[in-house]
Amino acid sequence: MSRYALGLDFGTNSVRGLIVDLANGRELAGHVFNYPSGEAGILLDSKDPNVARQHPQDYLDGIVAVVAGAIGKARAADKTFAPSAIIGIGVDTTGSTPIPVNREGTPLALLPEFKGDLNAMAWLWKDHTGHEEAARITALAAKERPQYLAKCGGTYSSEWFWSKILHLHAVAPRVFAAAHSFVEHCDYIPALLAGNTRPEALVRSVCAAGHKAMYCREWGGLPDADFLGKLAPELASLRERLFDEAVPADRLAGRLCPAWAAKLGLTPGIAIAAGAFDAHMGAVGAGIREGTLVKILGTSTCDMMVRPNTEKLADIPGVCGIVDGSVLPGSYGIEAGQSAVGDIFLWFVNHLVPDSYGRTLDEKFEKLAAAAAAQEPGAHGLMALDWNNGNRTILVDVRLSGLLIGQTLHTEAHEIYRALIEATAFGALTIIRRIEEFGVPVKEIVNCGGLAVKQPLLMQIYADITGRPMKVSRSDQTCALGAALFGAVAAGAEAGGFATVADAQQALCGTRDLVYTPDAARHEVYTYLYQIYRRLHDAFGTREWSGQLHQVMKQLIALREKQRR
Amino acid sequence: MSRYALGLDFGTNSVRGLIVDLANGRELAGHVFNYPSGEAGILLDSKDPNVARQHPQDYLDGIVAVVAGAIGKARAADKTFAPSAIIGIGVDTTGSTPIPVNREGTPLALLPEFKGDLNAMAWLWKDHTGHEEAARITALAAKERPQYLAKCGGTYSSEWFWSKILHLHAVAPRVFAAAHSFVEHCDYIPALLAGNTRPEALVRSVCAAGHKAMYCREWGGLPDADFLGKLAPELASLRERLFDEAVPADRLAGRLCPAWAAKLGLTPGIAIAAGAFDAHMGAVGAGIREGTLVKILGTSTCDMMVRPNTEKLADIPGVCGIVDGSVLPGSYGIEAGQSAVGDIFLWFVNHLVPDSYGRTLDEKFEKLAAAAAAQEPGAHGLMALDWNNGNRTILVDVRLSGLLIGQTLHTEAHEIYRALIEATAFGALTIIRRIEEFGVPVKEIVNCGGLAVKQPLLMQIYADITGRPMKVSRSDQTCALGAALFGAVAAGAEAGGFATVADAQQALCGTRDLVYTPDAARHEVYTYLYQIYRRLHDAFGTREWSGQLHQVMKQLIALREKQRR
Repeated sequence: MSRYALGLDFGTNSVRGLIVDLANGRELAGHVFNYPSGEAGILLDSKDPNVARQHPQDYLDGIVAVVAGAIGKARAADKTFAPSAIIGIGVDTTGSTPIPVNREGTPLALLPEFKGDLNAMAWLWKDHTGHEEAARITALAAKERPQYLAKCGGTYSSEWFWSKILHLHAVAPRVFAAAHSFVEHCDYIPALLAGNTRPEALVRSVCAAGHKAMYCREWGGLPDADFLGKLAPELASLRERLFDEAVPADRLAGRLCPAWAAKLGLTPGIAIAAGAFDAHMGAVGAGIREGTLVKILGTSTCDMMVRPNTEKLADIPGVCGIVDGSVLPGSYGIEAGQSAVGDIFLWFVNHLVPDSYGRTLDEKFEKLAAAAAAQEPGAHGLMALDWNNGNRTILVDVRLSGLLIGQTLHTEAHEIYRALIEATAFGALTIIRRIEEFGVPVKEIVNCGGLAVKQPLLMQIYADITGRPMKVSRSDQTCALGAALFGAVAAGAEAGGFATVADAQQALCGTRDLVYTPDAARHEVYTYLYQIYRRLHDAFGTREWSGQLHQVMKQLIALREKQRR
Repeated sequence: MSRYALGLDFGTNSVRGLIVDLANGRELAGHVFNYPSGEAGILLDSKDPNVARQHPQDYLDGIVAVVAGAIGKARAADKTFAPSAIIGIGVDTTGSTPIPVNREGTPLALLPEFKGDLNAMAWLWKDHTGHEEAARITALAAKERPQYLAKCGGTYSSEWFWSKILHLHAVAPRVFAAAHSFVEHCDYIPALLAGNTRPEALVRSVCAAGHKAMYCREWGGLPDADFLGKLAPELASLRERLFDEAVPADRLAGRLCPAWAAKLGLTPGIAIAAGAFDAHMGAVGAGIREGTLVKILGTSTCDMMVRPNTEKLADIPGVCGIVDGSVLPGSYGIEAGQSAVGDIFLWFVNHLVPDSYGRTLDEKFEKLAAAAAAQEPGAHGLMALDWNNGNRTILVDVRLSGLLIGQTLHTEAHEIYRALIEATAFGALTIIRRIEEFGVPVKEIVNCGGLAVKQPLLMQIYADITGRPMKVSRSDQTCALGAALFGAVAAGAEAGGFATVADAQQALCGTRDLVYTPDAARHEVYTYLYQIYRRLHDAFGTREWSGQLHQVMKQLIALREKQRR
């Protein structure tokens, strides 16, 4: 009899449910629920472009919708399928997306007294309101706890756990006071399904804790109370209501509680794996192993690698995080990434492409790609920096911005489109070079996510710019597949799942036949262009240059914020 | 009885004829003829974006069309009007727009053997094919004749006379060999109307010769044969077939020949003034006098000032030209300018503005301006460099390009539009500051040209950024008005014209009641932003910085050219 696992993949704009056949990785049925709140699921503030929140009610409604939808489609696809054949559930989410909760673990946003309060919502990964707090945390850690920074690339980000909580503390004392604790989205969902969301009881992901909350076994878990107390006395006491232990995703978070089992039509008591972030589970779903760089190409990008934790691994400056167990148990997970990739293309097509390229978004993308593909490298004369949403790796600086140079009176939209793709590829190459410089060789690159499948031009440019073959994951849904995989590992071999993650990857993961190989002549031109990219990158992104250009983007951002107030 | 003068104003895309009432400056009737050849009158080469030529036949057809059109409209507007009341003709054109001609002064492009040959056409001002030759000329002059450069801002431009001729010599020896001489567009038209285009006989404009061909009385006219011979031996012999004398535009170029009088329905023998460039005559039509900066805002921009030639005037580095008599007789004409202003907006709206702003160009401009006007300075967080067509003043470097910095994932088209307007205003301020630094105070600014009249937002931003009131010329057609004015001066007071240019300006010119005054608060923000503009300007445009960023635009342009070949 076939056995299945269910992956729940909570993205930026939607949640996806995926039912995976554990015999061969076949994705039997999937269903997507678009978050109904805000703008494509994101709650914005017209006065502050840094704000990005989500409504926890969307998560709850999403679970019910995607499980029902996936089961319905699974039945239609395979008459022998029954929901009782689902033996485990895995969950991945965006992050750091902390949710303020009360003593019972209920999100404050779901309580009547905080209805509609943006500060009581889930603070989505791309919320940048805590940039000043991030700078404070970085400065304090640099002075007093350099080891905290070493594991997260040397700079603590505004996208991360403590920046957000400290900012909430500053701007919304009432919400902060009501928050008994804070729970990452990826920890909240498994706990919810297991029927016990009490903050002190729920299982915490080492992926979230390690990459975003400066958690490390070496120094006994979260940052010490002394350190937190210097940021705000209330953080020191909050620490006691957080956690000491965090685990990899092959561990059991709990078992499906009767109430949710009934709601979803699943068997009570099936395994629920500990949660983790989408990129980390996506990397596993893409078949990550030593030497493999998995690039998850979406609105933003995550670049994941692993190294056995039995070997010493140097800290890598500017690489966001190195956390034991965050991807695979027994390995260091290395997380790098680009703050905006697909988002830059979307921005450009939505805001700056005339209808002569088509009327719908899809038409425009298609025509832009066709026209851009006809150009040789450098023929547009343009160079862009891919920092419209800041730079996560290797500069770790959200207060950077986009740059376009080289435009004439003849520059056309598809030329800029190509330059933007190239900019993200140069950004990708910068990450590869940095990781390799610090002793982690990249032997293989596997791409996954929508862009990897839908944009052959992008994949070819990535191959040409990096000079390396680009493979594409067989699955279109590696995050949901990875989540399901962990559900099957948490269930264990006896229940029809797997004993180890490696066993599960062997059975469920793979790459496509089509591999994008670099063109030598184009690679040569791009090698020249990369020097120009790096010159601009270093001039505007680092303090190494005399001209103080590194201040320009920051000054413009600061003025923008002042003038919009 | 009323007396009239006719101005013929040859622009980049069209020619305009204007009949002006000499009693009061009333513009009785005007008519425009769009050049039929090429793209909006410009002959392009898809393989080389630097190419910009014009067909001389368009000029001939244009004269007939606009005079007939203007006379017809004048008759309709005023029953008492008769063409015999037109007592003089003035001519302005773009420049440097040299035309290769044969021994009789006939443009080679009009001969059957050169039909359709781009190199035999008029080389339009914005043709940049001679950029390598410009660099050679600059280098040679810097070494051997520094005085030649001092009068033209320190760098000889690819837009100018000798660069174009030297480039023609290099790429089209057959055309060069057939060219008995070269005649500026502004000299060709008066000679044509006077019935004698023989190169040795025709009257040459000191405006064209002085600003573009390194002509100066101080060193005896054009550059010496020795110097030219080092560029190419053939240039030394060509010099003998050019000219020694060049004159201001109040001088007579000749009298209307019977053939053209018949063709145009005008009185044979009426005065034809010596030609000059559009900006110079436009400045006169706008009422230029000592202390007045006239800004002619069109696709590109010319900034004109005058200083009495009885006083010593320092050379101004980076200011394109200082020529005795080029604007007003008895005064130095100072010409600065921006290589693209209206052109940048047109490029942006044509290529990068989605139809949500409107379907037609006019609709888009209107909606962009309305949305941009609602923003405070700096609120868009953007900064642009206005170098999409290079930088004429103060860097004198065509191998520069546009730059946009500060874009996020939320940046909208109208925000970029505003940033582009601001960039041109910062460029304008840079010119004002440079001119004042070298001892020419700017007491008043009079704007003219289409943008001055049609774009109140632009005028207000110029006031806010420069911190100075912006006046607007009463006439919409100051170039054609200036041309007519010189026609009336050439005719002289006895014929019903004027004895002096000052008399004519007194009678014909003025500014509007509406003056754009700077807002102090916005000026303060812009003063801060100007520092950022200058930082980028100096980093990318000069060698003063250590980071070699000044190479970036040039490298991208060189690669573009290579990859497009």
